[in-house]
Order: sequence, then C-alpha cells, then structure tokens
Amino acid sequence: MFRHQKELQFEVKVDRPDPLFARQVQEVLGGQFGEMTVMMQYLFQGFNCRGGEKYKDMLMDIGTEEIGHVEMLCAMISQLLDGASPEDQEEAAKDPVTAAIMGGMNPQHLLVSGLGGLPTNSNGIPWNGNYIVASGNLLADMRSNLHAETQGRLQVARLYHMTKDEGVRAAFRKMLARDRYHQYQWMAAIQELEEKNGVVVPASFPPEAELESQPEAYKFWDLSEGNESSEGLWATGSAPDGTGDFVYVADPAPQGQVYKPEIPPTNIHHDLDVAKVPLKK
Amino acid sequence: MFRHQKELQFEVKVDRPDPLFARQVQEVLGGQFGEMTVMMQYLFQGFNCRGGEKYKDMLMDIGTEEIGHVEMLCAMISQLLDGASPEDQEEAAKDPVTAAIMGGMNPQHLLVSGLGGLPTNSNGIPWNGNYIVASGNLLADMRSNLHAETQGRLQVARLYHMTKDEGVRAAFRKMLARDRYHQYQWMAAIQELEEKNGVVVPASFPPEAELESQPEAYKFWDLSEGNESSEGLWATGSAPDGTGDFVYVADPAPQGQVYKPEIPPTNIHHDLDVAKVPLKK
Amino acid sequence: MFRHQKELQFEVKVDRPDPLFARQVQEVLGGQFGEMTVMMQYLFQGFNCRGGEKYKDMLMDIGTEEIGHVEMLCAMISQLLDGASPEDQEEAAKDPVTAAIMGGMNPQHLLVSGLGGLPTNSNGIPWNGNYIVASGNLLADMRSNLHAETQGRLQVARLYHMTKDEGVRAAFRKMLARDRYHQYQWMAAIQELEEKNGVVVPASFPPEAELESQPEAYKFWDLSEGNESSEGLWATGSAPDGTGDFVYVADPAPQGQVYKPEIPPTNIHHDLDVAKVPLKK
Amino acid sequence: MFRHQKELQFEVKVDRPDPLFARQVQEVLGGQFGEMTVMMQYLFQGFNCRGGEKYKDMLMDIGTEEIGHVEMLCAMISQLLDGASPEDQEEAAKDPVTAAIMGGMNPQHLLVSGLGGLPTNSNGIPWNGNYIVASGNLLADMRSNLHAETQGRLQVARLYHMTKDEGVRAAFRKMLARDRYHQYQWMAAIQELEEKNGVVVPASFPPEAELESQPEAYKFWDLSEGNESSEGLWATGSAPDGTGDFVYVADPAPQGQVYKPEIPPTNIHHDLDVAKVPLKK
Amino acid sequence: MFRHQKELQFEVKVDRPDPLFARQVQEVLGGQFGEMTVMMQYLFQGFNCRGGEKYKDMLMDIGTEEIGHVEMLCAMISQLLDGASPEDQEEAAKDPVTAAIMGGMNPQHLLVSGLGGLPTNSNGIPWNGNYIVASGNLLADMRSNLHAETQGRLQVARLYHMTKDEGVRAAFRKMLARDRYHQYQWMAAIQELEEKNGVVVPASFPPEAELESQPEAYKFWDLSEGNESSEGLWATGSAPDGTGDFVYVADPAPQGQVYKPEIPPTNIHHDLDVAKVPLKK
Amino acid sequence: MFRHQKELQFEVKVDRPDPLFARQVQEVLGGQFGEMTVMMQYLFQGFNCRGGEKYKDMLMDIGTEEIGHVEMLCAMISQLLDGASPEDQEEAAKDPVTAAIMGGMNPQHLLVSGLGGLPTNSNGIPWNGNYIVASGNLLADMRSNLHAETQGRLQVARLYHMTKDEGVRAAFRKMLARDRYHQYQWMAAIQELEEKNGVVVPASFPPEAELESQPEAYKFWDLSEGNESSEGLWATGSAPDGTGDFVYVADPAPQGQVYKPEIPPTNIHHDLDVAKVPLKK
Repeated sequence: MFRHQKELQFEVKVDRPDPLFARQVQEVLGGQFGEMTVMMQYLFQGFNCRGGEKYKDMLMDIGTEEIGHVEMLCAMISQLLDGASPEDQEEAAKDPVTAAIMGGMNPQHLLVSGLGGLPTNSNGIPWNGNYIVASGNLLADMRSNLHAETQGRLQVARLYHMTKDEGVRAAFRKMLARDRYHQYQWMAAIQELEEKNGVVVPASFPPEAELESQPEAYKFWDLSEGNESSEGLWATGSAPDGTGDFVYVADPAPQGQVYKPEIPPTNIHHDLDVAKVPLKK
Repeated sequence: MFRHQKELQFEVKVDRPDPLFARQVQEVLGGQFGEMTVMMQYLFQGFNCRGGEKYKDMLMDIGTEEIGHVEMLCAMISQLLDGASPEDQEEAAKDPVTAAIMGGMNPQHLLVSGLGGLPTNSNGIPWNGNYIVASGNLLADMRSNLHAETQGRLQVARLYHMTKDEGVRAAFRKMLARDRYHQYQWMAAIQELEEKNGVVVPASFPPEAELESQPEAYKFWDLSEGNESSEGLWATGSAPDGTGDFVYVADPAPQGQVYKPEIPPTNIHHDLDVAKVPLKK
Repeated sequence: MFRHQKELQFEVKVDRPDPLFARQVQEVLGGQFGEMTVMMQYLFQGFNCRGGEKYKDMLMDIGTEEIGHVEMLCAMISQLLDGASPEDQEEAAKDPVTAAIMGGMNPQHLLVSGLGGLPTNSNGIPWNGNYIVASGNLLADMRSNLHAETQGRLQVARLYHMTKDEGVRAAFRKMLARDRYHQYQWMAAIQELEEKNGVVVPASFPPEAELESQPEAYKFWDLSEGNESSEGLWATGSAPDGTGDFVYVADPAPQGQVYKPEIPPTNIHHDLDVAKVPLKK
Repeated sequence: MFRHQKELQFEVKVDRPDPLFARQVQEVLGGQFGEMTVMMQYLFQGFNCRGGEKYKDMLMDIGTEEIGHVEMLCAMISQLLDGASPEDQEEAAKDPVTAAIMGGMNPQHLLVSGLGGLPTNSNGIPWNGNYIVASGNLLADMRSNLHAETQGRLQVARLYHMTKDEGVRAAFRKMLARDRYHQYQWMAAIQELEEKNGVVVPASFPPEAELESQPEAYKFWDLSEGNESSEGLWATGSAPDGTGDFVYVADPAPQGQVYKPEIPPTNIHHDLDVAKVPLKK
Repeated sequence: MFRHQKELQFEVKVDRPDPLFARQVQEVLGGQFGEMTVMMQYLFQGFNCRGGEKYKDMLMDIGTEEIGHVEMLCAMISQLLDGASPEDQEEAAKDPVTAAIMGGMNPQHLLVSGLGGLPTNSNGIPWNGNYIVASGNLLADMRSNLHAETQGRLQVARLYHMTKDEGVRAAFRKMLARDRYHQYQWMAAIQELEEKNGVVVPASFPPEAELESQPEAYKFWDLSEGNESSEGLWATGSAPDGTGDFVYVADPAPQGQVYKPEIPPTNIHHDLDVAKVPLKK
Repeated sequence: MFRHQKELQFEVKVDRPDPLFARQVQEVLGGQFGEMTVMMQYLFQGFNCRGGEKYKDMLMDIGTEEIGHVEMLCAMISQLLDGASPEDQEEAAKDPVTAAIMGGMNPQHLLVSGLGGLPTNSNGIPWNGNYIVASGNLLADMRSNLHAETQGRLQVARLYHMTKDEGVRAAFRKMLARDRYHQYQWMAAIQELEEKNGVVVPASFPPEAELESQPEAYKFWDLSEGNESSEGLWATGSAPDGTGDFVYVADPAPQGQVYKPEIPPTNIHHDLDVAKVPLKK
C-alpha cells in the first residue's frame, strides 16, 4: 500500500513559460525512457519479485521514488505551459519568433490536457506497457534498469542544453544526479549477481545441453565487407568469463540447408496449381 | 548494399508440426526481444553510426547476421504449421488434446499468413519501431544491445523446455550459443568504452554543472518500509568509479515545495469559478 | 443497411485556408473524443444492443447522425488545406509568420492524404478501436456516452477560441449545439435507467455476496497528506442511493498480508540460487 | 513524494493455480478500465489540478490507493500462475481439460514475465496512455472517473462468476465494495459541480455565442427507420437544466450544402486531368 | 448525411453458437482487411474526393454499403456468442472438446463487450486508422481498394472451410459474391484510369526530370543467389507501357559512395573522443 | 543468410542541412509505405513462399535491394540533420524563418536518435508489422506489392517538390526510377498469375459453392443519392473475366431480416429487467 506527501521531492520553479520546450520535456516524462517507464518498471519488478527480499525491498524503494519524479515533471510542464492559452497565442502571433514557438507546440497541451502534462512522448505517442521490462530473471532485469537510466540521463543531458531557463536547469541537475546514482546502483547490483551466477543470462541453462553447439559461442562472423571490426576486444582474446577464446571468422559460410517448404493444402487458397489439386470441402 | 545466399545460417528441421508451439515461437521472432528487434536495432545503429569505424563495421556484421536469424525462425514456424490447415483441423477436433492445441493456436496463422511466420509476438501484437534503440551514444547503445541479447536468450531458454521436438531443440541450441557470444561481444565493447570515458552515461556532461547537486548522486533513498535494501552493494562502500561513497538515507524528507499551479485562463474552460472570471472572446 | 444523402447535415464554408488549424481540427475528427469515436461507439452499441428496442433504435439514430459529422469535418479540413501545397509553401516561406504556420502543419496532410482529412488525432496518431466502449450494460454505456460528449464539446469549445475564421466558427456553433443536446440526451437516458435499477453498476450483482465486504463501500481512505479532501460531499452524509453513510478514514491501516511469493521452478530461469536447485529437463 | 508500506491493502490468498484465469484477470489489471488506468488517471488529474485544493487532495488520496490495487492484482496473478511452468505443463498435457486450460493461457506469462503480472489486458495488448483522461475540466474528468469505475466494476462482477476459487472471490468482493464506493464518490463530486456551474460541459462557453444555433440543442434527429426512440425521456419533456423543451424530428432534412472541393494543385499528383494542367516545378 | 434501415442487407442466421469461431470471425470484422477497413477506406476516399463526380458518388455508394456489412458481422458474432456466458462455461468444462473451444475464445467477448462484436481483429488488436488508405490519387487508391477486397475475400474463403455451420456459410457466400463484384469494380475503375493517364503512378511527375535516371527504371537487380528470378515476365521483354525493355542485371555493383557521416557536436553527448572536443555550454 | 557491402546502392549527397525536411523524409523511411515496409514485406513474402521457386528468388532479390534503400534514407536524414544540434539552434533562433524550421523539426531527432534516422513516420509514429502483407496467396500479395510501390512513389514525388536541394533531388530521382521499375515488375507478375488462374482472388474457391449467391457478384448497389456512379466501366458491360454482365441497381432493397438478439444471461450483468430474472450463481 502507498502514501503520498504533498511536497515535491525536489524544487521545481520554472523561470518563464515555453510551450515548445514543454513539448520536448514530454520525452522524459512519457517517452520510452522517461520517468513513467522507470516508475512502472521498478514497481512491476518489485510486485513480481519472487525470492530475494533485499532486491524486492530495493525495487520498491526506487519505484516509489520514481512516482515522485513523474509528479515533478508534471509540475515542470504545467509551469512551462502557463501563458500558452488561446488568448495568449493571439498576442504571440504578432512576433515571428514567438509564432514559431507556438506553431511548434503540442496542440494536445491546449485541446486535450488543458495545460497539463500528458502521458505521452514528445511527439504525442501515448506511453505504453511495452516500454517496461519485468522478466522474473534478476540479472536480466538489472541490465534493463541500468540501460533505462543510461538512456534517460542521456536525454535529460541533451534537453539541458536546449534551454537557458535556470529554474528548469536547476531541477534537471537534481535529476541528473539521481540518474547518476541509479546507474551506480544497478551496476552494483549487477556486480553482485554476476559474481554469484556468472555473466551469461540465464546462468541456469544446463551446460550439457550446450556442448554440441559450444564453438559457435566464441565466433565473430564477419558478414559486412571490411575488417575494421577485427580490432575490437570482442574479436580477440578470451571471453569475459574465461571459458574460451574468441575466433574471428573472416569469410563465414552458411551451415544450414536451402529450405523448401511444403506446398500447403488447397483450402489455404494459395493459388499455386489451382487446376491440379482437388479441393477438400 | 546487401546480398542474400540461399542457405540458412544453421539447419532448421522440425520433427513434427505443432501449431500451438508455432504461436509461442513468435515471441522470439516478432516480440520485444525477438530477432526482428536485434536485426533492426543493430542495422539502425550501424546506419546512424557517426565516427568509430570499427564500431560501425561490427554493427553491420552482426545486424546482417540477424537478418538471417529472422529467416531461420520463419522457416521453423512454417514447419511447425504444416498440418494445421482447416482440413487437418477437422480431423484433429476428434482428439481432445489435439483440439486443445488447435484451440490455442494463433488464428492469424491460418487466416492472415496462410501458414507462414508473422511479424508479431506470441499474442499477435505487431512488431514496432519502439522496440529498438539507436541513440547515437555508443556506450548507451551497447548497454541496450547487451540487455536485448540477455532477454532474448532468456526467452529462448524458456521455450527450449516447452517442447520435446529434437529438431527444434537443435536449432535453438545454435541460437543459444550465438546469443551467448553476443552477450560476450557487448560486454567486451562496453569494457572498452567504459575504460575510455568512465562508467556513467553520458560522460561528456560538464562536471562543473553537476557540482551543486553532487551529493544526491551517492544517496540511497529508502521509501519503502523495511530496510532489507540496506544489505546490497548499492547501499554501502564506494561508487563503481570511486568518485564518492554511498549513503543510505533511512527516512528521507522531501526537499521541494508544495506546488500550487496558476488558475488557467478562462477559455481553457476549466469550469473553476465560472461566474467570477470574465471570458475574453 | 444504410443510405447516403449528398448534402452535409450543416453548412461548412471556411473563410480562408489555415493548414496549422487543419492539424488542430484533426483532434475532434480522429482523436480519442472526436466524431469518429462517437460514430463508431453508438453504431457498435446499437449493433450489439440485446433487448430494449427503444434504446437500440435511439442508438442507431444518433450513430447514423454522427457518420455525417465525420463527413462535415472532412469537408472543413480539406477547405483549411486548400492553398497548402508545395507550390504555395514556397511563396509562404517568404513571410516569417506564414512560415511558422507551414512549419507547424501536419506533413501527412501533404504526403499521405493529398490535402484531405486523416483518420488520426492532432498529432497524427491513428484512431483506434480502443477509443470506443460497448459493454452490453446499458447504464455503463450511457455514462460512457455522456462522458464522450462532454470531452468532445470541451475540445470544440477550446478550438473555437483558437481561430477567428467566421466560417469555421459558424460550423462549430452547430456542433456545439448538437453536443449540448447529446449531453442532455444521455443524462435523460441515465435518469431513466437509474430510476429503474439503482445508481451502482452493475445493479444485478447479488447483494448477499456483497455483505461481508459492505463496510468498505462507504469509506473514504485518506492516503495523501492533508485533509482538504474531507470537505467534499463524498466524505460526509449519505451515499447517493441512501444505503449507508460515508466514513472519512483519516489514517487508514492496510488490512492485507505481506505477500511472499513462491520461488519459481528452475526452468523459468530466474537465476536465484542456481547452484542449489537441480533443473528438471 | 510517495512512500510504500509492505502490507497489501486487502488480503489476497488464492486457493489454487489457474493460468487461464490469470490471463482473464489481466483485463482488470492492464485493460482499458483496469486498475492501472484508474491509478494513472487519478494521479495525472491530481498532478495537473489547477485550483480547487479539496479536489486535488482527494484525487491524490484515491490515486495513491489505486497504486495499491495494482499491487494486489499482481499478487493475485502470480499466485494463479504458480504451477504453470513448462515442467508442470508436461504433466498437465495428459489430462484433456487441463490441457485446454494450459492451451488457453497467455504464453507471455511464461516467456516474458516468468510467472508475473503483465502491464497488458487479457489479450496481451500493452496498457497505454490513451486509456486515461485528464482534461483540466473538473466536471468532465469526474464524469470520466464515474464511467471508469462503472466499467471496471462491471468487469470484476463478470470475472467473479468465471471462477469458483473462494480466495479469489474474497479479494474481488473487497474490490467490488471499493468500486461501489468510488462510484458514489464521483457521483457526489459531480453533484457538487453541477449545482455550481450547470450540467452542460463546458459551462463557461459564452452563451451569446450559442444563440443562433440554439434550436439544434433540443432536437432529436430520427435517422434510423422506426420510431421506438420517441419513447424515451430524451425525446419528450424538458432538458435536464430546464432551459428548453425537446423536439422529436421524425424526418429530418439536411441543412448543409453539397460540398464540391477544389481541384488540388498539380504537384499533389492527384492524376485528374494530367494532360490539361501545367505543372509548376 | 446518412440514414439507416432496420433490415440487414443479407440474412444472417447462425445454426449454433461457437465462441471460438466468433473469435476467428473478428478477423474479417475488425482486422486489417475486415469490413471496418473497407467501410472507413471508401468513406474517407469519398469524403476527400476532389474532382471526378462519378468516382466520388461511386465511393459513397460502396462505402455506405460496407457500413451495412459491419452491421451483418456484428449480428453473426453475437449469435455465435449466445451460450458462452460464465454460467454456460461451467457446464462446458465437463466435456474436453467444448472446454478446448471455451479455452480458445476471446476473453473480451465476455468481459468487455458482454457477448457482442468488438472493433478488433482475431487476436484482440483494436482496429486502427493506419489500416485505411485515402491518398488523393485516384489510381493509387483504386489499387488499394482492389488489394483490400482481394485480401478480404481470401480471408473469408479461408474462414468458410473452418466451420460446418450452414447458416454462417450462407451468409459468407453472399459476402464472397459481393467481394467478387468489388474486385471486378476496382479492376474496371483501374482500367479506365490507366487508359487515360498511363500505368505508372503518379503519371503527372514531369518526364524531363526523370531522364537522367531513366535506365534504372527497366533493370532487374539480382541480389539473391540463384537465377530462377530470370524466368519471369518481369525479367524479359518490354515494360507494360512499352516505353522500354527490361534488363536482367545478374551481378549488380553498388553505384554510391561509402558514406562517412560527420562527428556530431559535443552536446549531443555521443561519447566519442570526449577528452578532445571542448563542450559549448 | 545475408552479406553487406559498404557502398550505398546510389549516391546520397545532400547540399545543405534542413531538419524540417528531415522530419518529412521520415514518411518514406518509416511510414506505412516507406522503405522499411517494402523491405520487410518482400522479405517476409520470400521467407514464407511455399512453392514457386522463381517467385521466391525474385522476392528475395528485391527484398534484399530494399534493405539498401533503408540504408540510403538513413544516410540522407543524417546529412539533413547535420547542423541541428542544440548549439546550432541557439544561433538559428535569431532568424525567424530558421526558427520556424527548427520549431517544426521532430524533437526526437535530437533527444532520442542523436541526429540519426528513426524507425518512424513523419509524425514520429513507430513503424509496425501491420504495415506489411504476406498472405501466402501469390496474386493477393503481388497486388499488395504493386499498391505499396504506387503509394511509395506518389509520396516521393510529392516530397520532390518540397525541396530545392539538388543533392536530395538527385537521390530521389534514382528512387523514383526504381519505384517505376518495381511497379512494372509487379504488373508483369500479376499478368502471369491472372493468365493462369483468373482475375478473382482466391481462384481456388469451389465454384459450385458460389452458385446460389452468384447474381450478387455482378450488381452495383446505388446507396448514395445521385446516379453519377452509373457512368463508370463498373456499372455497364461485362465483368473483366467475361463471366457475366454488370447490373446497376438504382434503388436496392435490403434482403435480410431485422435481427433481434437474445436477452443475455443474467451474470453478464446487462441490467435489463434486473428484477425479473433470477441470477444463477
């Protein structure tokens, strides 16, 4: 069960309205790697966590924190939208630069939300459940979490340079610091889990079942002209878990058959050889 | 520019048809972490790669390999669907277990694709471009790639136990081996990049801008009852890059204001105090 | 079966082209509460209506009217787009304000529809079947209808102030009047149904099954700091159907257990305690 | 900012696993009117609420309660999925009725979530932001809330009869009671707002602008054969706000023009009269 | 403006309920090529038709007919669902084959629509506006229409063999006949338009602009191993409009450059050479 | 299996950056009829092709070519985006026309892709698998292919006039030439197939089953006022396959019944006659 406190986690005071920027901030609210995503992802991982109390508790801690980040971004967007109503727009249309800003704003900020944050990305695409990952495998999910915080912080950093509003920037700095911590956090969790189970997910697949195909687990297949790719760590030396050495295959040949599928039954109506095959009714 | 060879990368010979399993295999063809995703993700990252020739070449190598994995899974699904046409179904309805299998199959495998693989997941949701990530930041994208291969291999491993078909299992073993290599590959690339730029993404955000909010980059906020979360590596010791020590905040207080937004202009039609505010037409 | 008359239901004569406004009008054509939604919603409710001839007939009357509203909005949008073709745009680019308008228009109005209305909202999101409700419960669906007309009229009212075009405004006034009638209509239908069955949906759930949990049906749980919420009608007095009195619970305690899920079987590959649990193949 | 308590709001103890029913319960977790919808809807309405402290506080109270309902349904689904892993399925396939149940389950409960709740509906469609409404008009949003609780309770009532599991039914009874209260709650809020501003949304549209088109606000247009629709309250008597009397128009004539759009410029490439119109390059 | 007649266009009398088949019929109601698609496609093409009165009138004729086909399919589905309510299901669970049928039905037919047709395909994916095409180019759209009727009739033909219900089959035969006519109709329209403007769309692109690249308009590029593709009409002889002869290019070489994109500015945060490039704030 | 060559199929050298045009070009990369669609459509048709080696080989030839077209458009878009980073934008804001261009660009080109092409259309809607068709019926699919190339070439032709950039135009001319060839190609394939099997799809539906409903296969139903539609080839003369003569039905009467559905069981909770019908628990 949850409870709410009235204060925002961090202060959000925008210096001046900017409806075009409000649209852009939607990306980190309701986009693929926005705060709605990390909120729902950590909550679902926590709700579904089977075993591992310290992981479950930690996921609930951070999932609960992220609900408050959604709250902060709604506050930021509504402040950026103050002054963007139809009656303000008429005035704005007289100045070409302001007209450009108004022309580029999200029309749904006026028509649909009445100057509030939307559960969408910067192009108005609704947030959806496909954005989140909760697979029931801890290491897999921690890698997802590290990745989500990585993309999220990258986008906030890009947004940071797109505004000169010091109020916005101050709030973003807090979020950048939290996203830095969250990257550290998932790295630490990953380190714990990899030390216990090994680095390849899932670790529990029975090794004897892998034997026959094992050589394929160490080969780089060069299928694009040029051999610059032979220079990376992935092409030489040993696998990260030391179980084998990498092999660079410069001109790989296919190992499978030319697959010739069966002609389907007539009532699939493929229209091959209609004259010849009697139809079963 | 691309070229195609007729042979499959690895052999795909299914022992016997199983239309319910065909539906389940769709998850690793057209689901969020299926082969369509890694194919399109690596191709887009390669197409968009700016600078770093060895990364671009490597992305094109593996993206090109993955097109061939989509090809293999289509071959597998069409073999699993042989024998699922309407005329076979009539016969099948006489045996209750077979009826259950036919009842659980994806109707679009008959009606829409005529016994072929679909660009959808196991519930028939069409694959979409939101599944892929190509951000223009190399380390961010390599983390996405490691994650995608992690979830993908996990799903193939789960599928492996859901069939006894030795033909299917042999093909899956090849794919599990390749997914193991691909996890190694992205780990190696990540190691290179982290050694060069540091572990936090993006590394290029100007450090002086972070100063004021820096303390928030090391704090764990405990917002869910219970303190099991204090036991993890994320709560004690130093950050992975050694730039600071973690602090466990057991009872964190909000630092922001209670936000009271402005009453919006009347022609937003909020219906607050309609009587009092004159409308501008 | 349906028939079509050539005249529009109401006159639509736009004074002058305005491609940016054409984009905004899409919200009330193909958005969540646009005319496509009410058209399809009333038609599906009518098609599926089981019993209650007067409701079925009425739903078919209004559903059929709404097809004509979609027709009117397409006429409006195509008039707003006259003069927005590539050859007009070149001219427009010379004036900064017009350039801003052209820059903000929906590119699909040129590329995809060739200056026609699109089945999408103001951000280009395609209309979808999730927007409509036809549940088979009459009172539930009438509430949906009242709500849809409420949001729809709100959006048309907001659009009204975003244009000075008297031709557009005249057509909008007709639509506002019809939306007013439709709100009245659903209120009247709701009144009839509530008088017959009671106000809570569904009314047919067996009362004896509700007994044990009945007290929860009258409690307000205060889970957000502050007690301003105690001032509303929902917190004091009796329930609207007079079956009980409201109780304001100022500091509610959870009534459930701390849920500890089972450790899943190994071939789910959760990676907990991999070493300890033997895998069943 | 938010906080989490470990106990569930109400007890959730399922008597026995039932993976087919787990799929069906997804409808009230991640479907259009499931708990994710009311949770996100009330939170967004609360975050965006401008003015009206008691409404904002109340929205935060109930939005916070609904996060806990999502938590409860995840707990229910994971219990229903215990015993549905691949190793259990093999055993199950021997019994035809159990095979039917396994054949009808959602494959993503195994492959994607590893036996956990998914942010999707009963057909696996991901939850999306279009399901929620937060328009900035209080009366409009309260009508949405009443409607959402209406559909939600209807679906839970239908589910109730689809299981004999007494543990599930006990949890559903609590939810049915809360959904009953929430219907009362929104009715009470609607009553307050309608008494203040009138019943038509938005109330603030300037009455003088409506004058010319006013007659259309009281007419029923009979556009479907048959006149059963003349029997309802919507066809006779006065409008609910007493501002006029309803008129039943038995054979309505269109009032608009036959719209003939302009031939578009040639570089739209419409292919009408290609020979005749010179192309501007 | 539209009007509705109470009778269905053709009789729809189902012999016996079959909820699994009801799910499958959804494909031709709300799937990509179902009746909702042709209804909305022809209506939007008609509404947007600029010039060409006989085309506009014809599109309105057939679009109006298709609304009635949606009506017919809703009637068919609701008859197929009679007898699938929770109380019937309990009885059904005793017979394994019936259990399989019930297990395979769409849960939303019970929970969401209360035994009515849904605006979705056979997997429950909501119909969406992307399914329809209305481009403003007549020949392009007629090709879309021919294609839609082609896929639609193919799916109905496949469904026909999946049921033995003579009532369903009688209704399908009417629909197959209409789909046959509609294929004829679009072929006839295409013949008219191609005779006037030529076979390549758009015909109005200025020929002189095509000169330089003209040779590429007649070449087959063989990019997949094997030369079976050289046997088709597309590889030999003349183009259908006689403007040139086809050339089979057996081993085509790329004609473009190796593209090396610019290194992006630092505040895109690409993480290449972070140390070397000074950041502009 | 596939291989990649480093050179682009045709040269792509953009004269100058234009971020607004970059957004528009997305339509032909990731829109419904963009290069991603034809690439995936031909590949899936080729992968799933059962029988007909020359068709399979040809589909693989052209599908492989189209992967290279996606590559070319990504190169074009990244060149159009050079110079659109935040630091360039600041400069741009000083000039109103440039500000308008920047205001109209896709914010995800900065925030999400870091100046690279996106797998989305011009409004940012992600590409999805519903865009492609692979039905297993050759003639049906060739008609889809002809249609896709038709819409695709139309959109490229429209884009051509929206830019004066000679580098872009040169690349578009190559694409227009290839799209012209591809239209020829599918016409040739269609001609082959129609000569073999007849023009109506599917040809294999048993003729004797169509007898009773055959007259409906030649009738035009005039359901929209006006008889301009009687002037087309579809209304007079013989069907394209000469099997019958068209009949223009000027005032068609419905042939079906007025459908009255059954009252559903009580635990569907329809709320009709709640008092009268006892509920089965």
